[in-house]
Amino acid sequence: MTLTGVTLSAPFLDPESLRAIDTPALVIDLGRMDAAIDAMAAGMAERGVSLRPHAKTHKSLEVARRQVQAGAAGLTIATIGEGEVFADGGFDDLFIAYPLVPGPAKGRRLRALAERTHLTIGIDSPTGAQAVADALGPVRDAVRVLVEIDAGGLRSGAPPDEAGTVGAAARRLGLPVMGVFTHGGHSYASAEMRGAAADDEVRSLTEAAASLAGTGIESLVVSAGSTPTALASARGAVNEERPGTYVFGDRQQAALGSIGPDGIAAAVVATVVSVNRGARRFVVDAGGKMLGKDVAPYLDGHGEIPALGGLTVARLADHHGTVDAPDGAALPAVGQVVAVLPNHICPVVNLVDAFLVVRDGRLVDTWTVDARGRNG
Amino acid sequence: MTLTGVTLSAPFLDPESLRAIDTPALVIDLGRMDAAIDAMAAGMAERGVSLRPHAKTHKSLEVARRQVQAGAAGLTIATIGEGEVFADGGFDDLFIAYPLVPGPAKGRRLRALAERTHLTIGIDSPTGAQAVADALGPVRDAVRVLVEIDAGGLRSGAPPDEAGTVGAAARRLGLPVMGVFTHGGHSYASAEMRGAAADDEVRSLTEAAASLAGTGIESLVVSAGSTPTALASARGAVNEERPGTYVFGDRQQAALGSIGPDGIAAAVVATVVSVNRGARRFVVDAGGKMLGKDVAPYLDGHGEIPALGGLTVARLADHHGTVDAPDGAALPAVGQVVAVLPNHICPVVNLVDAFLVVRDGRLVDTWTVDARGRNG
Repeated sequence: MTLTGVTLSAPFLDPESLRAIDTPALVIDLGRMDAAIDAMAAGMAERGVSLRPHAKTHKSLEVARRQVQAGAAGLTIATIGEGEVFADGGFDDLFIAYPLVPGPAKGRRLRALAERTHLTIGIDSPTGAQAVADALGPVRDAVRVLVEIDAGGLRSGAPPDEAGTVGAAARRLGLPVMGVFTHGGHSYASAEMRGAAADDEVRSLTEAAASLAGTGIESLVVSAGSTPTALASARGAVNEERPGTYVFGDRQQAALGSIGPDGIAAAVVATVVSVNRGARRFVVDAGGKMLGKDVAPYLDGHGEIPALGGLTVARLADHHGTVDAPDGAALPAVGQVVAVLPNHICPVVNLVDAFLVVRDGRLVDTWTVDARGRNG
Repeated sequence: MTLTGVTLSAPFLDPESLRAIDTPALVIDLGRMDAAIDAMAAGMAERGVSLRPHAKTHKSLEVARRQVQAGAAGLTIATIGEGEVFADGGFDDLFIAYPLVPGPAKGRRLRALAERTHLTIGIDSPTGAQAVADALGPVRDAVRVLVEIDAGGLRSGAPPDEAGTVGAAARRLGLPVMGVFTHGGHSYASAEMRGAAADDEVRSLTEAAASLAGTGIESLVVSAGSTPTALASARGAVNEERPGTYVFGDRQQAALGSIGPDGIAAAVVATVVSVNRGARRFVVDAGGKMLGKDVAPYLDGHGEIPALGGLTVARLADHHGTVDAPDGAALPAVGQVVAVLPNHICPVVNLVDAFLVVRDGRLVDTWTVDARGRNG
C-alpha cells in the first residue's frame, strides 16, 4: 500500500491540536516547510543559479515572503490573476511562466499588471507575441519576454529550434526578448526519468538559446524548472530555476525521490466518519473536493495515512475518501482524526481557503490561500 | 474520441460573447439548465415523489431558488458549511445527506445551524449518533435524523439489516429518527448498471425500513438519490429523491444516458494558447485546476470540444489541457476560444468563484458559487 520501500511520515500534531481541527482541513508544518525553503535556496546559491519559486503551489503571500527572505529573486506565477494577488501583496518581480494569448479582457489586466510590477511574460508563438504586444500597447518595452520551448514535456512551448523565429517576431513587435524557458514536466513520469528530464531541459534550452542568438538575441535568462529536476543534473547554461512543489512536498515528490520520507510538510486532516467492519472498509471526510484526483501511475491510491500503517485512499467521491483495510490491518474507530498525505499538493491547496499552520505539533496560526482559484 | 455513438453539443455562445470572456471560465446555459430543472421536477411530480436536489453540484443560491420554484421540497447538502451558506440565503429545509461525526468545532456549528433551520441529519453508526446528540444538546429534538444505508455503493452507510440497531441507538439518545436514506453510487459505473443500481436502492431501503420498523421506528422518509437512478426504475417505497448533477449535466451523465446529447448546460470556455503543428497537438488554458481530474472508465479524456469535432483533452497539468489531434483533424489557431464539456461537473463548479450565465447565446449575468470550498 505504501510507496515501494518508503515509509512516509506525516506532520506531527499533538492530540489536543488534532482534536481542535474542524475537518477536513489542510495543515502545514512550519518546521518542515522552512527546512525545504532553506534547502532549495542553499542548493541554488551553491550553484550560483537564481531561484524564482513557482507560487502556484502555495498561492500564499506569507509563504512567498519566506521564500524571498531565504533568497528567492522573485516569483513565478501561472496566471495574471495570481500576479494581481501577489502584486497587491507587495511582490513586484513576477514571471508568468505560461504562453499568454490575451483576449480583450485579459489584455487590459495584463497591461495594468505590467504598469505596476517588473513583469516577465512567456510566449511560444508569433500569434501570442502579437496578442501580448497589442495588450501592452505603449508599455510593451517595460516588460521582459521569454520564449517557452518544449523540452519533452509534450504540452506548450515551441520546438527549441523555432525559438529564434518566435523571438524575432516578438522583437519586431517591440517586445524586449530576454531569453528562453522550459518546464521538463516529463520529470514527473518516474524516478528514473528525473535525471533524463533534467538533462533534456538543459540541452533544449541550450539549443533554444542558440536559435535565439542566430537572430541576434542574447539569452540573459535561461530558465528551467520543476521540483524533480532542479537539483537532478549539472545545469549548464541554466541560470534560473522555478521549482514549486518543493515547498510542501507530497507523495509524488517522495516517490520521485525529490524529497525524503520525512519531507512532506502538508497534510489533509480528516475524520473517520464511517466504518464497515464486515466489509473491512472505512470512510474519511476528505473526498475529491479536498484531496484532488491526481494519481501518478507509480502511486497507489489517492492519499496515504501514516498513522494507519500507510493505508491509502482507494476511492474518492466528492466528500468521501474510502479506504479498504486488508486482513490483519486494524480498523480505526468512528470519530478518529487522521492526517492524509496527498498525492499532489498543488491542486489541494487550490481547493481550500486557508492553511492551518502547525509548529512543533501545535496549531499556531491560520494563513489564507490568497490566490486560490485565480485560474486566468 | 467522442462518446460511443453520441455527438454532444455545447451551450451556444454568439461570437461577440465568446470573445468577451476572460478564459478560462465556467459558463452555464440558462435555457438548458431551466429545462433540466423543469424536467426533473415534472418527473418527480408524476411519480408523487418529493424532490430534494443535491445542492453540492451548483453551490448556488440562484440555482437553488429556481429548483425550489419548480417544486423542490428542500435542499440536500453535503456539509455543514454548505448548510450555513444556504441558510444565510433563506433556505430553511436542509438535509445533510452525510454520516456526520462532529468534533467540538463542527458540533458548535451543527447546533447553530439546527437552531435556525429545519435540519435533517444523516448518521450511519451509534458513535455518529452519540456525536450528533452531544453536539445538539437540548435542541436534539428539533432535528430529523435519517439512517444512511449502503445500497452497493461501497462507501458509507450501514448494512441495511443494521439500520434498526443504528436507529434504535439514536432514538435512545433522544434523536428523532424518521427514516432511511442511501445513494446508489454504483449507478455511475456504466450505463448498464443504472437500472440495477436503481433497483438496489429500492430493495436496500425497503429492507432498511423493515429493520427500523423492527425496533418500532416508522420510516416517514425513504430517500434515494442520484441523477442516474432517479428516473431509472420503479421506485417502490422511495418517497424522496436527491439527484444533483442533472441540473447542469456533464459528459458522464451523457454517457450513462441520464441526459441527452443536447442536455449539457455547463461548459468551460478556454483559449487555445499553444499549437504544435509538427506534433499535431495543442493546449487550452483550462487545466486540472479548471476541468478537474475525474475520468470515468467509459470516458476518453478530460473533457470534450464539440466545436473541434469532439476532440478530447488527453492530458492535464494545473493550467494546461493538452489535446492530441489525429491525422486529418484540423488544428485550431492560437487564440481560438472554445467550449470544453467537463467529465464531471460537481468538482468543476467547486473550482470557480462564479458562473457566467448565457441565455440564447448571449452573456446575461454572473452568479457567484456561493458555497464554493465549504468542505466541512
